[in-house]
Amino acid sequence: MLDRIPQRVTVYEVGPRDGLQNERARLTTASKLELIAALADTGLTHIEATSFVSPKWIPQLSDADEVAKGLQRRPGVTYLALVPNERGLERAREAGMDAVAVFLSSSDTHGRKNIAKTLDEALASYELVCAEGLRLGMHLRGYVSTVWGCPYEGPVPVERSLRAAARLLELGCEQISLGDTIGVGTPRQTEAILGAMLARIPARQLAMHMHDTRGTALANVLVGLQLGLTTFDASVGGLGGCPYAPGAAGNLATEDLVYMFLGMGVETGIDLVKLVAAGELAQELIGRKLSGKYLQAALGERERLQSQGKLKKRGET
Amino acid sequence: MLDRIPQRVTVYEVGPRDGLQNERARLTTASKLELIAALADTGLTHIEATSFVSPKWIPQLSDADEVAKGLQRRPGVTYLALVPNERGLERAREAGMDAVAVFLSSSDTHGRKNIAKTLDEALASYELVCAEGLRLGMHLRGYVSTVWGCPYEGPVPVERSLRAAARLLELGCEQISLGDTIGVGTPRQTEAILGAMLARIPARQLAMHMHDTRGTALANVLVGLQLGLTTFDASVGGLGGCPYAPGAAGNLATEDLVYMFLGMGVETGIDLVKLVAAGELAQELIGRKLSGKYLQAALGERERLQSQGKLKKRGET
Repeated sequence: MLDRIPQRVTVYEVGPRDGLQNERARLTTASKLELIAALADTGLTHIEATSFVSPKWIPQLSDADEVAKGLQRRPGVTYLALVPNERGLERAREAGMDAVAVFLSSSDTHGRKNIAKTLDEALASYELVCAEGLRLGMHLRGYVSTVWGCPYEGPVPVERSLRAAARLLELGCEQISLGDTIGVGTPRQTEAILGAMLARIPARQLAMHMHDTRGTALANVLVGLQLGLTTFDASVGGLGGCPYAPGAAGNLATEDLVYMFLGMGVETGIDLVKLVAAGELAQELIGRKLSGKYLQAALGERERLQSQGKLKKRGET
Repeated sequence: MLDRIPQRVTVYEVGPRDGLQNERARLTTASKLELIAALADTGLTHIEATSFVSPKWIPQLSDADEVAKGLQRRPGVTYLALVPNERGLERAREAGMDAVAVFLSSSDTHGRKNIAKTLDEALASYELVCAEGLRLGMHLRGYVSTVWGCPYEGPVPVERSLRAAARLLELGCEQISLGDTIGVGTPRQTEAILGAMLARIPARQLAMHMHDTRGTALANVLVGLQLGLTTFDASVGGLGGCPYAPGAAGNLATEDLVYMFLGMGVETGIDLVKLVAAGELAQELIGRKLSGKYLQAALGERERLQSQGKLKKRGET
């Protein structure tokens, strides 16, 4: 049953962008760069570093220019930034980014509230942005949100998500990341959504961006893996939480995802021990316990071993 | 791919036993009975109420006799208790229990530390216990722990778990619950373990008892469901935590499991709204936030709606 899944997958780390934009804590630019460097050190090949949206929209990411300019670029790692419009693209280019992502919602209500555009308005607005990005030789990624459900409209017809994904590919995006923005997805729904997508779009051009708000993210990833998808988004430690339910989990935690792949013999190229260290750093910077289960298990196990005297504490000689 | 999974499953609630035995907080007998009644009110058909072990072993469950005698038995609900030996069986019978479970570890090291018996010693000791239980007309269930891994030995050969399960069935157990005691399981491993089991044991005689310590429980359940299993253990709110990693998650949360089944159209007969109420009660009784993701999402969403004035707070008119 699971003998025909992909042998190697790509994990897209979105913590520094999708994670931080939903955290109350405001990190300094230096802290963000420290976290991004720790993530790059794990073997992750794709890191979403920031978003060039208006600081009025997302004050947590108002230092996008400084973050982008301050990146200690590691060979083999692609650093991305979100751009909502031509102004954002211009800022990203000036800050030295060579990979950007555009984003929209398949649900019009969510789109209006999130980027002040319906699906069709967003698709139209990205024509120029994508053309200009291509002209500048940039790599483009597209995000489609609310594919599994909208916090305002409920279920969203898959045809809308498919139309959005297909058009963004036409505009030059290399890959479309399908988002379960509010973490409502369940496996049969995932099979239906991805099945409809895969009828028109090759698996390598699709990514899953699952939130773990109701605990189902990894089960949905397993379905995607069985259907041949090879790119999965996640956020270190589950950084970000859910904007629609205070105290609930948001983005799928990168450690949980990588642990499952590791256990299944699916290569990621990521060092899980280093990833836990990055998760611990994220937790320290944010100042709260993150929701990632593997992270808490690893930190708890270390605590137990230390309390039994089997492992030295930090600073203990 | 998911069109041939079972249409109906049974959820075994183990919170009042497996959950509480791993919590530091000591609940009063009345509180335990209140929680069990709330769980029975959700539509759950199987509830593990307590364990007749020595109070020296598990002081949290030292009131097993009072809990069993105090049960407000609801028609259609089976209440179970764990019994480690003949003395425990005798106590269970005297307290009016008609369904009991015996338990052992496939790993000898875990078995020695947990019940002071190796696998073979435990199997031998349960011969009399099971025979006596059958003579008394009781329903018997068997638990095999550490099937996915042992906290001391690491991986455990599946042949040991299979031998344990097959023998417990011979002794009269109606069903064997296979436990991922430390929550290390991943989907391919689950396919391999269940595949080996199903070669000798019918699916209806097997249950999965997954811990969610590393976030993989539901993905593993999905594999079990695809292989035809129809009984799954879980603990309300994820009550219990992990004894091997302080602060980490333990038992799979019943709400997460039921939410996934609900989304997949798999019938459980359980009312998820009532289950959240039981989870909230468990959280209040224990005095800490539980790890169940659906529970936190539901409570967080309520908080958001209340703060927006769209939903009344408790006590508000």
